[in-house]
Amino acid sequence: MSSPIRTVTSIGIMGFGAFGRLMARHLQPHFALRVCDPARPAEPDPSGKGLRPADAAGVAACDLVVLAVPVPAIPAAIAALRPHLKAGAVVLDVGSVKLGPARAMQESLPADVEIIGTHPLFGPQSARGGLAGLKIALCPIRGGSTPRIAAFLRHVLKLRVVVTTADAHDREVAMVQGLTHLIAKILVRMEPLPRTMTTASFDLLMQATEMVRYDAPNVFMAIERANPHAKAVRDRFFALAEEMRLFLENGDVPRADGAAPSAAGRRLAV
Amino acid sequence: MSSPIRTVTSIGIMGFGAFGRLMARHLQPHFALRVCDPARPAEPDPSGKGLRPADAAGVAACDLVVLAVPVPAIPAAIAALRPHLKAGAVVLDVGSVKLGPARAMQESLPADVEIIGTHPLFGPQSARGGLAGLKIALCPIRGGSTPRIAAFLRHVLKLRVVVTTADAHDREVAMVQGLTHLIAKILVRMEPLPRTMTTASFDLLMQATEMVRYDAPNVFMAIERANPHAKAVRDRFFALAEEMRLFLENGDVPRADGAAPSAAGRRLAV
Repeated sequence: MSSPIRTVTSIGIMGFGAFGRLMARHLQPHFALRVCDPARPAEPDPSGKGLRPADAAGVAACDLVVLAVPVPAIPAAIAALRPHLKAGAVVLDVGSVKLGPARAMQESLPADVEIIGTHPLFGPQSARGGLAGLKIALCPIRGGSTPRIAAFLRHVLKLRVVVTTADAHDREVAMVQGLTHLIAKILVRMEPLPRTMTTASFDLLMQATEMVRYDAPNVFMAIERANPHAKAVRDRFFALAEEMRLFLENGDVPRADGAAPSAAGRRLAV
Repeated sequence: MSSPIRTVTSIGIMGFGAFGRLMARHLQPHFALRVCDPARPAEPDPSGKGLRPADAAGVAACDLVVLAVPVPAIPAAIAALRPHLKAGAVVLDVGSVKLGPARAMQESLPADVEIIGTHPLFGPQSARGGLAGLKIALCPIRGGSTPRIAAFLRHVLKLRVVVTTADAHDREVAMVQGLTHLIAKILVRMEPLPRTMTTASFDLLMQATEMVRYDAPNVFMAIERANPHAKAVRDRFFALAEEMRLFLENGDVPRADGAAPSAAGRRLAV
């Protein structure tokens, strides 16, 4: 490991979609920012004080580089940045899954850059009222810069920082985001939904749905396809939905294997 | 119609489960209350100032009588009260469906009592912070006392009152409560659910679940079995869940009739 960059003064953001913009707004007061969007190379016009459009080389020359592209675009972003990264720079991603991006960064980034996988557990909707109290997961992958970065996120941005591993993250988030997005997708397709005779719990369900329904389609696909634990979660959700359907249809809960109703099924039938 | 009782001073509550108790707590400062629980005739011990245990005859002798028994127990409660009701008394129920109870009350209550179907769109969980701002639906069925009762609920208990018909109520609430309880039942069965790396939208989903998970089992059964619109809602929910399952399994959305994917399916696939 070469000597780490002690003080981060410049941050390069690769990817300038909804999340890249949100991040830039909150980092701008503290750092010199350079941004580049590989999906829109022709229109790099992020106006704002201290925010400079750049090419991949310009972004890669910063002390800290954030991959804010969709998860499937991470390998191409790494390839574009790789030749220009400084020794001791810190590279982190912000994808909603961590195992895949962690592997890609570890395999393809030069040995003299530090790596952290991060997942800000919020988006433009939930961050409308500010960042304070929102959560971010950090998965240290290479180098020792996690504590310094966690301190900045905690004390300056007021985020709640969870330090974890990529696998523990993906396992928990498969449920958190998998269930939220699955339920929201179903509810949105049931519109128009009631607005008048609503209960407090239904109102909360609607608020949860509003928060994720405008997320970019790649977020849902990353959650469902790129998270290795997502399939088990949704299989369980769909199996329980089917069990509930049969119970309400027949008043009994047959098990998939044809055996007697499970204890859970009997409890449900009470 | 005989002359209505102009001023309600006594209220009889038939049924003293979780909701009957909640109601008694909020009505006690304003009325003389008599309560009777047909499911627990041996233990009528509702201590509290102004709250008198009574038999069905005592409850029926009040100016206003509330049926707070489970929906399937309403006919038996009416039969017990019927011989003792005062001319001009107001009878109302608080069930989470309205068409069935409305029909039962209309058919079996004496012609000289007034009838209102009500559905307080809250329960012990959502009312923990007080009643102000919570909603109640009123369905006038016989007589003209709805405006007076609505005024009390609005100005004294600070509830939001929705005056509607039994059918409009059941149609809307089939979605509101049907979806909330269905989703909550599935989520509870997926426990343990994550507590650490949660998003704001997942936290809302969990709050919605907590609010209904301890509801009496008869609430869920009333919603699913006694509401004539519930089956259409859950059929649609389960069909959309199945469509989503197939989409995530195969990357395409076959329709039940074997035709090409629907427009909704194609949009989903984008």
